[in-house]
Amino acid sequence: MAEKLYEGKAKILYTTSDPAILLAEFKDDATAFNAQKKGSIAHKGRVNATVSAKLFTLLERSGVPTHFIEQAGENLLRLRRLQMIPLEVVVRNIVAGSLAKRTGLETGTVLGEALIEFYYKSDDLGDPLLNDDHILKVLTLVDAIQLAQLRHSALKVNDILGAFYLRCGIRLVDFKLEYGYDNAGQLQLGDELSPDNCRLWTLDEDRVLDKDRFRFDLGDVDAAYQEVLERVGATSF
Amino acid sequence: MAEKLYEGKAKILYTTSDPAILLAEFKDDATAFNAQKKGSIAHKGRVNATVSAKLFTLLERSGVPTHFIEQAGENLLRLRRLQMIPLEVVVRNIVAGSLAKRTGLETGTVLGEALIEFYYKSDDLGDPLLNDDHILKVLTLVDAIQLAQLRHSALKVNDILGAFYLRCGIRLVDFKLEYGYDNAGQLQLGDELSPDNCRLWTLDEDRVLDKDRFRFDLGDVDAAYQEVLERVGATSF
Repeated sequence: MAEKLYEGKAKILYTTSDPAILLAEFKDDATAFNAQKKGSIAHKGRVNATVSAKLFTLLERSGVPTHFIEQAGENLLRLRRLQMIPLEVVVRNIVAGSLAKRTGLETGTVLGEALIEFYYKSDDLGDPLLNDDHILKVLTLVDAIQLAQLRHSALKVNDILGAFYLRCGIRLVDFKLEYGYDNAGQLQLGDELSPDNCRLWTLDEDRVLDKDRFRFDLGDVDAAYQEVLERVGATSF
Repeated sequence: MAEKLYEGKAKILYTTSDPAILLAEFKDDATAFNAQKKGSIAHKGRVNATVSAKLFTLLERSGVPTHFIEQAGENLLRLRRLQMIPLEVVVRNIVAGSLAKRTGLETGTVLGEALIEFYYKSDDLGDPLLNDDHILKVLTLVDAIQLAQLRHSALKVNDILGAFYLRCGIRLVDFKLEYGYDNAGQLQLGDELSPDNCRLWTLDEDRVLDKDRFRFDLGDVDAAYQEVLERVGATSF
């Protein structure tokens, strides 16, 4: 009965007998730099599904609506189907990655307050940065109230996840969120919350525990993902 | 007495006996793509100085403070010295250039309302696009009130120049402004207003009259600059 709805770089989405519900299978495949670099990370599917399930649960309990229903297998999540907004909402607490390149600021610089960036979700265009005018006036992807809701939610997610990760001994450097609307028109957090789309550095020695290990060939990629799973698993809400 | 203060890609700035006043010499040198492409456009210095002088005069009369004092020679402007804000303020009325690449929209698409973009003025970083958070929180280049003043002024400049260029039979597609503060802390429009930093298309047949002729080897570059000078010169305020 389940049909493959969509296969992305890291996940496969299947329909279910309920048109409002999808199954997401998390793959071990890893890609970076808009799929120019390809590889695999052992047990990544299991790590990302399990970490996402725990963090979505935490967010739901903290009043952030998400698409998460339940973990349906070690690398499977049952999710509400959303009409996705084609924006990547990036929250940053510490300078790293493209922000260092864009601003010339040193990687590791702690920002006085969290920064939000919106990127246009388009592989063809290379996921370019957008400003508010691009979003509201040119592409009309959302309206001004929806944009304010995205900012508000993303900052709330940052507060909740940042505090939780601190208790895991991890600094939440930055992360990417994707949002959509459910059948009732309610804004919900979608996608995943995993070392694939968060930068996570250990609190004690800034050891990188996220996909940057894969991107930049830092070694011990599988072990880093495993360590995130263990630290998140061992920490209660 | 005059000392060379700064030599850029298109202009040389000289000090004068008055520390608050500079002389700008407009060169015929032309560069594009962050100086990867270099060349020369006949009489460009004269065209850009003369067109800028006329447009700054128009803006001053319309209540927009600028650094312009007077044209002091065919390729020379006398200017108030400003403390420049390291931002390029781009206003767009029609999709072209990087906006087409960023959004996937077709070149020539008319925008419902003018769009503003801010770029970080840094050759080393390649003049990257910034959003408000980058400007206000990360780089603290200006504060929120100053940013609103920049937006307000840039849109006013767009209204004034757009209406004037229409009377010249030219569509003002987009343009780049740079602002600074004078000794009294007053925000003033700086830099130049010329075919080097505006996209100008003829109203009747969308013939390109600006630096894109040089960037993309469209031919008749000198003649296009000359035509802008003639059309602007022949049109009264």
